[in-house]
Amino acid sequence: MRAFLLFIMFGMAVGSIKAQSVETTLTGIMKIQSDAWNNGDVDGFMKYYWNDPELRFVSAYGVSKGWQQVYDNYKASYPDKKAMGFLTFDNLVFDKMNTKMYMVTGSWHLQKEAEAGGWFTLIFKKFKKDWLIIYDHTS
Amino acid sequence: MRAFLLFIMFGMAVGSIKAQSVETTLTGIMKIQSDAWNNGDVDGFMKYYWNDPELRFVSAYGVSKGWQQVYDNYKASYPDKKAMGFLTFDNLVFDKMNTKMYMVTGSWHLQKEAEAGGWFTLIFKKFKKDWLIIYDHTS
Repeated sequence: MRAFLLFIMFGMAVGSIKAQSVETTLTGIMKIQSDAWNNGDVDGFMKYYWNDPELRFVSAYGVSKGWQQVYDNYKASYPDKKAMGFLTFDNLVFDKMNTKMYMVTGSWHLQKEAEAGGWFTLIFKKFKKDWLIIYDHTS
Repeated sequence: MRAFLLFIMFGMAVGSIKAQSVETTLTGIMKIQSDAWNNGDVDGFMKYYWNDPELRFVSAYGVSKGWQQVYDNYKASYPDKKAMGFLTFDNLVFDKMNTKMYMVTGSWHLQKEAEAGGWFTLIFKKFKKDWLIIYDHTS
C-alpha cells in the first residue's frame, strides 16, 4: 500500500514537473520572440508561428489565414524598428488543452511614442520537438 | 480484410457524426444565446457561461474573472433592450481541443443605433451533459 502511494505520488510529481517544463519552454519562446521584436527582427519574431496556410490570427480586422499573410500584415503595420517600439509580455496564464496543446493568455505592451497594448490568447501546439503558435487572437 | 476495412470506415463515420453532433450542439447553444440577448434577457444569454469563479472573459479591459463579474459587466454595459440591440453570430469555425473541449472562433455583430461588432474565441467545455463556455476572448 505504501509502495503504491509512493508510486502515485511519484507519478503526480513527474506530471507536475512536465507541466512546469512546458510552461518554462513556452515562456522561453515568448522571451525569444520579444527579444527578436526588440531587435527589429520580424523574421525572428515569426519563427515560432506555425509556417502553414492553416495558421490563424484573429484581430480587430478579422481572421488572417496562413503564415505569409500574418507576416505581411506585421511587415506592413511595423515597417521599421521605430514603429515596432519595445515589446513586453506580462500576466501569462497557461492552460493545458491536451498533451500537445497549450493555451496562453496574457497582455502585451509596446513602448513607443504612440504606446499600444492589449491582450492575447495563443494556442501553442507541439510538432515533434517544437512548440509553435497555431492560433493567435490579439486585441 | 474487407470486414476490417468496414470496421475502420464505420469507426471513422461514427467519429465524424460525433464531431458533427458537437458542432450542431454548440451552434444551437449560440442560437439560444443570441435569441435570449435579442429578447433583452441577459440571464438567458449567460446561462451557458460556466457559473464558476474560474470563468474568464478577456476583452479590451483585460481579464474578468468569475461568472458574477462577467454578468455584472454585461448588465452595466447593456442596461436595457435598446442598448443590447440585435445580436448575430457568424463565420463560426470549430476546433476540437480534446473530447471535452472545443474552441469556437467567430464574428459578432450588434445592430443598433451605434452598431458594434468584432471577433471572439470561445472555449466550450463539457460538464456531464452540458457544454458551457469556460473562456471568452471578445474583441
